[in-house]
Amino acid sequence: MSEHIHRRGGYAASKEQLLKRLSRIEGQVRGISGMVTDERYCMDVLQQISAVRAALDKVALALVDDHVKHCVMGAEPADRDEMTAELMGALGRFVGGR
Amino acid sequence: MSEHIHRRGGYAASKEQLLKRLSRIEGQVRGISGMVTDERYCMDVLQQISAVRAALDKVALALVDDHVKHCVMGAEPADRDEMTAELMGALGRFVGGR
Amino acid sequence: MSEHIHRRGGYAASKEQLLKRLSRIEGQVRGISGMVTDERYCMDVLQQISAVRAALDKVALALVDDHVKHCVMGAEPADRDEMTAELMGALGRFVGGR
Amino acid sequence: MSEHIHRRGGYAASKEQLLKRLSRIEGQVRGISGMVTDERYCMDVLQQISAVRAALDKVALALVDDHVKHCVMGAEPADRDEMTAELMGALGRFVGGR
Repeated sequence: MSEHIHRRGGYAASKEQLLKRLSRIEGQVRGISGMVTDERYCMDVLQQISAVRAALDKVALALVDDHVKHCVMGAEPADRDEMTAELMGALGRFVGGR
Repeated sequence: MSEHIHRRGGYAASKEQLLKRLSRIEGQVRGISGMVTDERYCMDVLQQISAVRAALDKVALALVDDHVKHCVMGAEPADRDEMTAELMGALGRFVGGR
Repeated sequence: MSEHIHRRGGYAASKEQLLKRLSRIEGQVRGISGMVTDERYCMDVLQQISAVRAALDKVALALVDDHVKHCVMGAEPADRDEMTAELMGALGRFVGGR
Repeated sequence: MSEHIHRRGGYAASKEQLLKRLSRIEGQVRGISGMVTDERYCMDVLQQISAVRAALDKVALALVDDHVKHCVMGAEPADRDEMTAELMGALGRFVGGR
């Protein structure tokens, strides 16, 4: 990893929205804990987990969008390949490896 | 949905473990909010989201395991088809639709 | 793996439908090769890959449905735990590990 | 969609490799049809489907890599936003909607 590249979140603009979404996800996970405590029907719990996963996917895609727009395209041309490689590594873990 | 089927969580035995995992996931999501607040590199944030998704997948699979073992196989033979249909509906939303 | 369990496809009834779907998927993959040969726009190719993945997911869910209905529930009670364990292993690889 | 943008596959370099992978996937799908014809154990069939999905994911990621490197970064600055939007739409369908 090149030391000179300035790596920081390229999402200053969308920060508030990301934090709002993450706080809603945190609440959804707490709600799932409540369902388990109340011994709610397991398939209803699974449905809520699907909803959290969909919400997480949206946050992930927003981060990829920010990364391409601000980090990759805002980087010096010489650094773009490395930033694209970092994107592909993170996407690979997200899509396939988990 | 047949009214007479007794639908409740079939996970009495694994309840403690599920709650522990969900509480850890809640903490991971809070940690991601902290990373966004600190404007950490977006690809590092994405990696943490992949970790939360993997942890959620494990909870989902544990619920499916409980459902098959306790709900489907513990049900009256006449109700098993309906409980299997509920499993397939929930799995379909989890895997594909989200 | 217990040697005495009779493991075979529990999908005699749905065999024709599965083969029809798989043959359609094979044709879709061949179509994607044609798009690459013609150097079609990469995002259009990606969209076709998403369609194949969705079609594969449906085949996978049909197999899980058959497995629960015919293999797990049709097995001797003593063998059901092992067949459920095999289901969970295969589902885990499908959902998370790939 | 802007008409003037020249949209074609940005994968001239990796075309041979993509075609090789797709031809292998086509063979894998044909092999799964053979397993179903022979009524092989459904969990073994599911495992092969997981393998095909993983192989498709790799092709998808290779296309995203090509798109970012050649289409987005090779485009006129004025067109990059639109090409990034096309990437995000295709990724969203791939990851979540399918």
